Amino acid sequence: MDQLTQLVDSLTADDLLAIEREVKDYALAKGIAFKLANSPPDTVSLAPLTLFPSPFPRKHFDFGHRLQPLVNAVSHKIAYDHGFLADSLAKTVQVDDFTAKMFDVYTQVRREGMAQTTSLGLFRADYMLDERPDGGGGYDLKQVEVNNISTSFCGLAPAVRDVHRHVLAKYGASADIGDLDKRLPINRSTELMAAGLIKAYDYYNRSSAVILVVVEQVVVNIFDQRAIEFTVSRSRPDIRLIRRTFAQLRDAVRLGNNRELIVDNKHEVAVVYYRTAYAPQDYAGDQDWDVRLLMERSRAVKCPSIQYHLTGCKKIQQIVSNRQVVEKFVADRRDVDDLMQVFAGLWGLESGPDGDQAIDMALGEPNRFVLKPQREGGGYNYFGGQLARKLDEIRHTKERESYILMELIRPPKVPNHILAPNKSLAANSFRPSNITCEFGVFGTVMGNADEIILNSEAGHLIRSKTYGTNEGGVAAGFGALDSPYLY
Amino acid sequence: MDQLTQLVDSLTADDLLAIEREVKDYALAKGIAFKLANSPPDTVSLAPLTLFPSPFPRKHFDFGHRLQPLVNAVSHKIAYDHGFLADSLAKTVQVDDFTAKMFDVYTQVRREGMAQTTSLGLFRADYMLDERPDGGGGYDLKQVEVNNISTSFCGLAPAVRDVHRHVLAKYGASADIGDLDKRLPINRSTELMAAGLIKAYDYYNRSSAVILVVVEQVVVNIFDQRAIEFTVSRSRPDIRLIRRTFAQLRDAVRLGNNRELIVDNKHEVAVVYYRTAYAPQDYAGDQDWDVRLLMERSRAVKCPSIQYHLTGCKKIQQIVSNRQVVEKFVADRRDVDDLMQVFAGLWGLESGPDGDQAIDMALGEPNRFVLKPQREGGGYNYFGGQLARKLDEIRHTKERESYILMELIRPPKVPNHILAPNKSLAANSFRPSNITCEFGVFGTVMGNADEIILNSEAGHLIRSKTYGTNEGGVAAGFGALDSPYLY
Repeated sequence: MDQLTQLVDSLTADDLLAIEREVKDYALAKGIAFKLANSPPDTVSLAPLTLFPSPFPRKHFDFGHRLQPLVNAVSHKIAYDHGFLADSLAKTVQVDDFTAKMFDVYTQVRREGMAQTTSLGLFRADYMLDERPDGGGGYDLKQVEVNNISTSFCGLAPAVRDVHRHVLAKYGASADIGDLDKRLPINRSTELMAAGLIKAYDYYNRSSAVILVVVEQVVVNIFDQRAIEFTVSRSRPDIRLIRRTFAQLRDAVRLGNNRELIVDNKHEVAVVYYRTAYAPQDYAGDQDWDVRLLMERSRAVKCPSIQYHLTGCKKIQQIVSNRQVVEKFVADRRDVDDLMQVFAGLWGLESGPDGDQAIDMALGEPNRFVLKPQREGGGYNYFGGQLARKLDEIRHTKERESYILMELIRPPKVPNHILAPNKSLAANSFRPSNITCEFGVFGTVMGNADEIILNSEAGHLIRSKTYGTNEGGVAAGFGALDSPYLY
Repeated sequence: MDQLTQLVDSLTADDLLAIEREVKDYALAKGIAFKLANSPPDTVSLAPLTLFPSPFPRKHFDFGHRLQPLVNAVSHKIAYDHGFLADSLAKTVQVDDFTAKMFDVYTQVRREGMAQTTSLGLFRADYMLDERPDGGGGYDLKQVEVNNISTSFCGLAPAVRDVHRHVLAKYGASADIGDLDKRLPINRSTELMAAGLIKAYDYYNRSSAVILVVVEQVVVNIFDQRAIEFTVSRSRPDIRLIRRTFAQLRDAVRLGNNRELIVDNKHEVAVVYYRTAYAPQDYAGDQDWDVRLLMERSRAVKCPSIQYHLTGCKKIQQIVSNRQVVEKFVADRRDVDDLMQVFAGLWGLESGPDGDQAIDMALGEPNRFVLKPQREGGGYNYFGGQLARKLDEIRHTKERESYILMELIRPPKVPNHILAPNKSLAANSFRPSNITCEFGVFGTVMGNADEIILNSEAGHLIRSKTYGTNEGGVAAGFGALDSPYLY
C-alpha cells in the first residue's frame, strides 16, 4: 500500500500527462466506454476510471468473497418464504407505489400458480471499509446494499484490472510495488456471471430457445452488457441472445399453450435477463407492467424473478439486519456471526415509538446517517442537511414508512487520480484526489423452494468516488471504475 | 466459399439489423475504432469493417506468407546496395521533390558515415487476386505494392478476425460453414510486429533506452498504434515507449557524444519507430526534415532507416519487376520464379522511346492501367479517364518521370456488407455489396550490409472496398477492415 501511495505521489506532471493519455487509450481499446445518449450510434466515450488500482485489505477482500454464498442463500430463502416476504413488505406496499406494483405482479403470479418455480439471480453485494469507532485506525467491512436486479459492471471489471496491471507493470517497476499477479487479483466476473445465464438456459432445456435481454431504450452501459452476451456466445455459440426494450415487447410477447414465453411469434424464451426494470421510470406506463407480468407468468427462468427482485428492497435489507431474523434463514452460528459483522445499523421508520426514536436520532446527528428509499441503483439517497429536511418533511406522514435509515459508513481516503472523459488531469493541476472505494462482490444463485442448484461468488468490482461526494454511480457520472491492489 | 455466400444472401433485414448492431458493438469493444480529428479527445468512432470475413483462396494466402521473407530480403539487399539505389532513383530525384529530400538525407548520412548500420523494417506487401486473361475463371496473386514505412493495421487485424469468428460462430451454425478455426486463420500480426521492435531494442542493448514512436499531430488510427505499444509492454514491461510529434521533437532532440539520439535531455533512444514521415505533408517544413536527418544520423535503430524507406519508392518497385534485376538479388531460381509470378506489368515513364511507348499503350486503354506517384499510402493514384488526362498533361514534361504505370489488377467480386460508422445497412436496403479484397502480408526484417538478423512473415491483413471504387485506404474512409475465410 505504501509503495503504491509513494508511486502516486512521485509522478511528475509530464509523467502524468503521458500516462493519462496512455491509460485512456488502453481503456478505450478494451471497451471501457459508454455510449452517450446524444451521440451518434457508433461513437463511444471513455467510462470514468481511476489511473491506478486502489489499495484494499486482502483480509476484507477475501471475506467479502467468502460471504457471498451466504448472501445469495439468504436472498434466495427470503424470496421463497411467502409469509416472511409478505409480512416484511406489508407496510411498504401501502406507501411505496413501485414496491406495490412489484408486489402486485408477485401476487398475481402466485395466485395463478408459478409456471416456472426456479429463479436465477445475478447479484452484487456492495461494501465499504468502515473506520472503527475505537480510534485505533482499524476498519471493518460493512455492507452498503445488495443488488438483485440488473447488476452492472461485471462485464467491465476484468478489463479495468488489465488496464491497471498494464500501468503498474510499465510505470511501477521502480517503485517496488510487488508481485502484480498477487497484488491485482484475477477477476472472473464476466465469465462467472455468464455461466449463471448458461446454467439457467440449460436448466430450461430447450435447444431452440433464446435468452431475452430486456434493455432500456438508450443503453449507456452497453459494453458491460455486451461483454456478458459475447462471453455466453464464446463458450456457447449455440445459445441465441436477443435484445428487446419494453416498447418492442409490448405487442411482441405472448404465452404459449404451456405458458412458454414467445417473442415475435418465433422465439421461445428460456431465460429473461433484465438489464432494466429496476426503477419506476423504466416502465413507461401500465402497458410495460403488463409486459413484466406476462414474462413473470411465463415458464421462462427470470433473472431475477419477481420474488428475487422483491428481496432487494431496502425494507428487506433493514429487517434482515436483525440477528433473530438472520437465524431464521442461516443455520450455522458462525455464518450468522459473519453476516451480522458486516451489517451496518439499519432502522425502519414505521409510525410508532420505534420509528419516532430513529427519526429523532437521525435529526440529532444527520451526518451520521443516510436515508434510503426502496430503489436499487444510486442517486436517490438523502445525506446530511438534505436528510434532515426530508425527515422534517415526512415525519408526520405515512410516506416515512417507504424509507429506511442507515448508519453512514466512514471509509478511508486513498490518493488516486480519476480519469474523466474529455477532461485532463491538468484541470486538477495533476494533484492526486482523495478517493473512497466501494467494493462489490458478484454472486450467482439459482434455485426453487426445494433446492439451491447454483450458489457461488462471481468476481468483484471496485468503484471509487472523490472523498466527500455522497453518490457513486459510475454510469450516472458520480464515480469511477477501479480495481483492488491487495495488501 | 459457397456456404458463406449462401449465408450472406440468406439473412433477412431483421436478422441484419440485429447482427449489424452486435458486430459494431463487438468491434468497438475490441478497439476497432478511430479517433476523429474533430471529436473530443476521449471519444472514438467505429472503424469501417465488413460484417463477415471474405472468401480468399488458401493457396494464394499461403503463397503470400511463404513469399514474405523473399520480399523482405529483396528490399533489404537493395537498401544496402548503394550503387543500385542511386542509379535507380537518379532520374526520380530530379523530378520528385519528396524523393529528392529523402535521398538528400540518405546522402548526408552516408557521407558522415552511418552511426547505426543496422535497419529494422516492419513491412507490408499488398496483393490482389487477378483474373487470368484465359477466361477460365482462375486467379493469380499479384502484388499491388510493398509498404516499408508506417505500415498500418497490424494492431487491429487480429481483432477483426475475432469479430468475424464471433459472428460466424453465432449466426453461421445453420449454414454449415465448416471448422472456423481452419477457415479463419489465427493472425499474430500485432505480436510479430511488436517482436520486431523488441528485437531491435535488444540489439541496441542499453537497458535505460526507450523506443521513440514518431507520430502525427492528430492520430486517427491510434488504437492500431497503441495495440503494438501495449503488446511490447505486455511481453517486455521494462521497455519504455514514448510518443512524440515532429513538432515536439524540433527543440527536444540532440545527438550525444557517440551520436546517441537523446530526447528531452533524458531519454536515449534505442529504436525510432515512424508512424508518420511517409508523405510530404507529414513534414511541416525544413525544420522537420532537419529532425529526420538528425534521427537518421544517430546510432538509434530506425524503423525504417532512410535507405529502407527509399526502397519503398514506386520507381524501385517498377525496376525490380524485371527478371534480370530480381536475379541480381535472389540466388535461387525457384525463388526468382515465385517473385516474378506476383509482379504485375510495370513501366517507367522516362523520357525516350520506351517511356513514350508506355504512355501510348496506357492512353490506348486507360482502364487497363493505374498511374502512381512515388508515395506510400492510398489516395494519390490515377485511374481511367483521370489517368488519360494526367498523361496528356505531363507527357511533354519531365514530371512524367516521377510516375510509374502499372497494369490494373482485376480482382473477383464477393458479396459482403460494409459496416460504416453511423450509417445503417438499411441505407442500402440490407442488400449485400459486391466488394473486392486487398490481401496484405506483414513482414519483419532487420539487418545490415553483412547479415540479415531477422527475416519473417508477420501475419496478414484483408482490406476491402466496394467494387468499382479505386482507392481502398481504410483510415482515409475508402475501404473497410476485413479478414479471410479460406477455401
